[in-house]
Amino acid sequence: MTDYKIKKIAVLTSGGDAPGMNAAIRAVVRTSNYFGLECYGIREGFNGLIDGNITKMGPRSVSNIINLGGTILRSARSEDFRTEEGRKKAFEQCQSNGIDALVCIGGDGTFTGAKIFNEEFGIQTIGVPGTIDNDIFGTDTTIGYDTALNTAMDAIDKIRDTATSHNRIFFVEVMGRDAGFIALNSGIATGAVDILIPEQKDSMEELFDTFDKAAKRGKNSSVVVVAEGEKLGNVYDLSEQTKKKYPNYDIRIAVLGHIQRGGSPSCADRVLASRLGYGAVTGLMEGRNNVMAGMRSNKLVFTPIEEAIKKHNTINKDLLKISEILAL
Amino acid sequence: MTDYKIKKIAVLTSGGDAPGMNAAIRAVVRTSNYFGLECYGIREGFNGLIDGNITKMGPRSVSNIINLGGTILRSARSEDFRTEEGRKKAFEQCQSNGIDALVCIGGDGTFTGAKIFNEEFGIQTIGVPGTIDNDIFGTDTTIGYDTALNTAMDAIDKIRDTATSHNRIFFVEVMGRDAGFIALNSGIATGAVDILIPEQKDSMEELFDTFDKAAKRGKNSSVVVVAEGEKLGNVYDLSEQTKKKYPNYDIRIAVLGHIQRGGSPSCADRVLASRLGYGAVTGLMEGRNNVMAGMRSNKLVFTPIEEAIKKHNTINKDLLKISEILAL
Amino acid sequence: MTDYKIKKIAVLTSGGDAPGMNAAIRAVVRTSNYFGLECYGIREGFNGLIDGNITKMGPRSVSNIINLGGTILRSARSEDFRTEEGRKKAFEQCQSNGIDALVCIGGDGTFTGAKIFNEEFGIQTIGVPGTIDNDIFGTDTTIGYDTALNTAMDAIDKIRDTATSHNRIFFVEVMGRDAGFIALNSGIATGAVDILIPEQKDSMEELFDTFDKAAKRGKNSSVVVVAEGEKLGNVYDLSEQTKKKYPNYDIRIAVLGHIQRGGSPSCADRVLASRLGYGAVTGLMEGRNNVMAGMRSNKLVFTPIEEAIKKHNTINKDLLKISEILAL
Amino acid sequence: MTDYKIKKIAVLTSGGDAPGMNAAIRAVVRTSNYFGLECYGIREGFNGLIDGNITKMGPRSVSNIINLGGTILRSARSEDFRTEEGRKKAFEQCQSNGIDALVCIGGDGTFTGAKIFNEEFGIQTIGVPGTIDNDIFGTDTTIGYDTALNTAMDAIDKIRDTATSHNRIFFVEVMGRDAGFIALNSGIATGAVDILIPEQKDSMEELFDTFDKAAKRGKNSSVVVVAEGEKLGNVYDLSEQTKKKYPNYDIRIAVLGHIQRGGSPSCADRVLASRLGYGAVTGLMEGRNNVMAGMRSNKLVFTPIEEAIKKHNTINKDLLKISEILAL
Repeated sequence: MTDYKIKKIAVLTSGGDAPGMNAAIRAVVRTSNYFGLECYGIREGFNGLIDGNITKMGPRSVSNIINLGGTILRSARSEDFRTEEGRKKAFEQCQSNGIDALVCIGGDGTFTGAKIFNEEFGIQTIGVPGTIDNDIFGTDTTIGYDTALNTAMDAIDKIRDTATSHNRIFFVEVMGRDAGFIALNSGIATGAVDILIPEQKDSMEELFDTFDKAAKRGKNSSVVVVAEGEKLGNVYDLSEQTKKKYPNYDIRIAVLGHIQRGGSPSCADRVLASRLGYGAVTGLMEGRNNVMAGMRSNKLVFTPIEEAIKKHNTINKDLLKISEILAL
Repeated sequence: MTDYKIKKIAVLTSGGDAPGMNAAIRAVVRTSNYFGLECYGIREGFNGLIDGNITKMGPRSVSNIINLGGTILRSARSEDFRTEEGRKKAFEQCQSNGIDALVCIGGDGTFTGAKIFNEEFGIQTIGVPGTIDNDIFGTDTTIGYDTALNTAMDAIDKIRDTATSHNRIFFVEVMGRDAGFIALNSGIATGAVDILIPEQKDSMEELFDTFDKAAKRGKNSSVVVVAEGEKLGNVYDLSEQTKKKYPNYDIRIAVLGHIQRGGSPSCADRVLASRLGYGAVTGLMEGRNNVMAGMRSNKLVFTPIEEAIKKHNTINKDLLKISEILAL
Repeated sequence: MTDYKIKKIAVLTSGGDAPGMNAAIRAVVRTSNYFGLECYGIREGFNGLIDGNITKMGPRSVSNIINLGGTILRSARSEDFRTEEGRKKAFEQCQSNGIDALVCIGGDGTFTGAKIFNEEFGIQTIGVPGTIDNDIFGTDTTIGYDTALNTAMDAIDKIRDTATSHNRIFFVEVMGRDAGFIALNSGIATGAVDILIPEQKDSMEELFDTFDKAAKRGKNSSVVVVAEGEKLGNVYDLSEQTKKKYPNYDIRIAVLGHIQRGGSPSCADRVLASRLGYGAVTGLMEGRNNVMAGMRSNKLVFTPIEEAIKKHNTINKDLLKISEILAL
Repeated sequence: MTDYKIKKIAVLTSGGDAPGMNAAIRAVVRTSNYFGLECYGIREGFNGLIDGNITKMGPRSVSNIINLGGTILRSARSEDFRTEEGRKKAFEQCQSNGIDALVCIGGDGTFTGAKIFNEEFGIQTIGVPGTIDNDIFGTDTTIGYDTALNTAMDAIDKIRDTATSHNRIFFVEVMGRDAGFIALNSGIATGAVDILIPEQKDSMEELFDTFDKAAKRGKNSSVVVVAEGEKLGNVYDLSEQTKKKYPNYDIRIAVLGHIQRGGSPSCADRVLASRLGYGAVTGLMEGRNNVMAGMRSNKLVFTPIEEAIKKHNTINKDLLKISEILAL
């Protein structure tokens, strides 16, 4: 093994938790250990970095966590880290603990914090995309996204059982903040009659038109999947307006909520997290800095963290078309 | 095979759908067929009986449905069946189709309808308890209850992942109408810090006391499971009052909703439904009338339908005590 | 709180592991703690008692384990505990650690060891039935059984997908040692065309007769569920003989194996384990000795451990009849 | 809509069934219908084409199947289609039914048959990769592969529960024929101590070395995942040789078998199948022939069917390295 510049890596999870974060932590810890680097776990995101809530981790600290949802390091959104004073304390903790490099697992909020910290204090930093929303540029998918898709799909499958049994219409809200990835894919996977996502301009007229077409074809029950960031309205608004138009419809609402953040990660997410955790450590060893490790076309790639935050993966418009054709 | 008085049995599902209803339909159809009786399926509950939405069913009509959620016969709540005129039409349908006996799968609303119809027109009738709420007397558990428990538990397990990762408090609403069975059992199974059910008088003071005790013991995250019929307030009220008392708490809400009605039935529900469907047909053949088929202490029993509606299984108070002790 | 005679309880898991053992351990530890008793965990069954592999456990030692399969205390079959010398060492460990009472979670092998140890050395002992096989007298179900049923059912559901798609016959072996409970219930739940269990005399002629009847009714694919203790032969024997008789049949074998022992426990198993763990500690506090805590008709009951070992729950013969009727 | 040359499309599934085939059938039928083409379903693969087991399918024929495992069209391996005579009959069926174009869903066996048939009789043909093995060139993943990965992973997770509880070594055989994709990915996802795949030369010495290293690091239990095509030996051979070397090891075997072919498809598989089914029909409409529809880097691509059969996706060697590093 060559003489790496960095000796001590610390890893943290920040922002909303996502299934597979533990698999990523495990990969960071074990890869560090394999290459003879010390590895530290920072608890509760950047707050733990500020407060020195830091512990040494060995290969056995991460035994039997690859299959667990959530994050053993806990996560938090840190107000203090938004202040220069907070970040200064964080830097002092890095110095007093001898930490050379940081692996920050999270979404764009996490990356923004990491970037500023890196630019201010020069601690070598790498990002790992961990969020169910899939709204990060520089990676085909983010850690947790595939699991969230399957969780949403399973829930909608169950709702469809009752929708079909009762000739009901369900408006189902799924997560994804400003991104429609979860809505679009879980909607296609469950044969939703319509899918409303922020990336596309929708109107009540088009929605009603879809209901009319479905009724004409003998479809008595329907599921409409709605992204939480949908601009036409939330599931309550949509339901109310639909009720006005179709007073006889039996309409129900389901907000899937936080179940989408939890659960044992899927195989794809565990493998992705393992590869990105490994890639983050080897990237740091190669001297990479202020970048994010991602996976594109099945290859490890590094993207400047600024791009990862600012650019966005675009929704595949073909998918929207396909969803319309197949739902009928 | 002896000469049974009845020749033609019809089966319907009514009220809220429950996982295992299909397994019960399958058992009614195949048992009828085995004993040389004709079997008819009535679609959309009592509405289908009124409208003559009735089809003959053979053993192959119910192939590959034992594992499906929902009900292939569909279900509905019937306003018309509440009128004498509606029931008269239903009786005429029975006569014109030659239907001697009815198997009504559902909850207490279904049974009330069945009882009145039986008393008015004399069609031999038997009830099968199919509801996730477990609020029917005369059977240890109702069809769908065990599946709903597991669905609620899986969802709360996922929520707990994120609660633990973020030091959050979650108020989780589960189904069960006026009964706390789902809340109590899913709460114990997920280590909920508190469980609020309508069968017990609760107060905000006691809830706050529980939070304080949990905090003292180093528990940073908590899940409170709340039955939908809870009298202290719904999850929104409870959350608001808790927020007032503990402004620093990060509190979230989850309403599990209709996912609890769907999904592939558990093994226990499929076996229960199979036994009760079989028991309903053999009960009819033995001349039983205006009763419900139930399973108590692993034995088939018949309870006058009036009792099934009026009496209630009581919540096991020991369980409440145990839940408090084990959550700490 | 009154002055109990016992001060220190120790808990162990022994024999084959079963889902829900962790929930039982959690209940023992937290109930002990609640009543002011000290609680110790013995690792790797009776071996750990002999070797002094014993640690104190507090309420936080059992956090976040209620949903985990396996046993955090690990399990083992102990050869040494079968010797007087081994048991003597175990007793010395009890004395030196001040252990007054033992909770032994396991099956009949575990209980046999516990009984002999109790009779030889007088340490107050209580058994908790933890085995997927459900072959213990004195409780309606054992911890792990319900989960194993659901695991077996899910696996057979998947196998049925491929059986149906290919017009195949599958012989599926499920666990249960000399007991047919898992086979019978998972077989009914999956619509198996035949179910072979040791409690019933089977013959190849009857099996072939079943295949012929199924073929006559247009059933092209079949699943036969076979208990591992079946006396007519194992799945390989049965397959071979069937192939001889029906050379054109496309026959496959599946041995479900150890997946049936693992997995997150079902709601029923977690609640059962919680109640029995609680019951074991309160039973010890009431002075009960050499008994097993069980749940019958939803009530906590204690059965002399000798009876629990020697007597057996009998298979419900009605179920066998029902399985035949419904499979057609 | 333009005037397409083709008027009638027929679809079949052939070879081993895979989860998601139904979603692909649904997409073919609904896309055809959307573009005004007639669509026919051929039952039991090429056998059904030979025997004229063909039915017209409309949008409602494929309702509620997107979530079902297996294939509603059934599948078979056809001996007759390997003969010129059989293929001639198949062509006559196409002619008499007016079928212009074929969508063949399956693996390389299916594609080989389709290619020969196309070259002999000129019926326009397109392949859709449906196999859990992921051994088809021209697509990043095949339909069913992601579901099989998750099924294998869930099963190994359960086995690991019992392995950990008992300090056992398990050799687990997973499917994949000559390809190690399932083994490699499910092995990484479950933290397998070693993964044996046909694409890599393995030796017992290296395996023993892995065991020794694991023991040195305090790992008491291990899961070794073995691809069914592994050349070093099958799980029985490997177990036997390991037992000889380490007589004290408690070694068990699990052959996951056909559960890997069944089950409700994952979200990724349902979306992939929907896109490829859509792509197959639009490909035919564009005049594509003797090609396979695949998805590479999230884009629909067409590959000459000959290449799809002959070339192979190579195992990512990085993954093997990562699996070694992370398992320690």
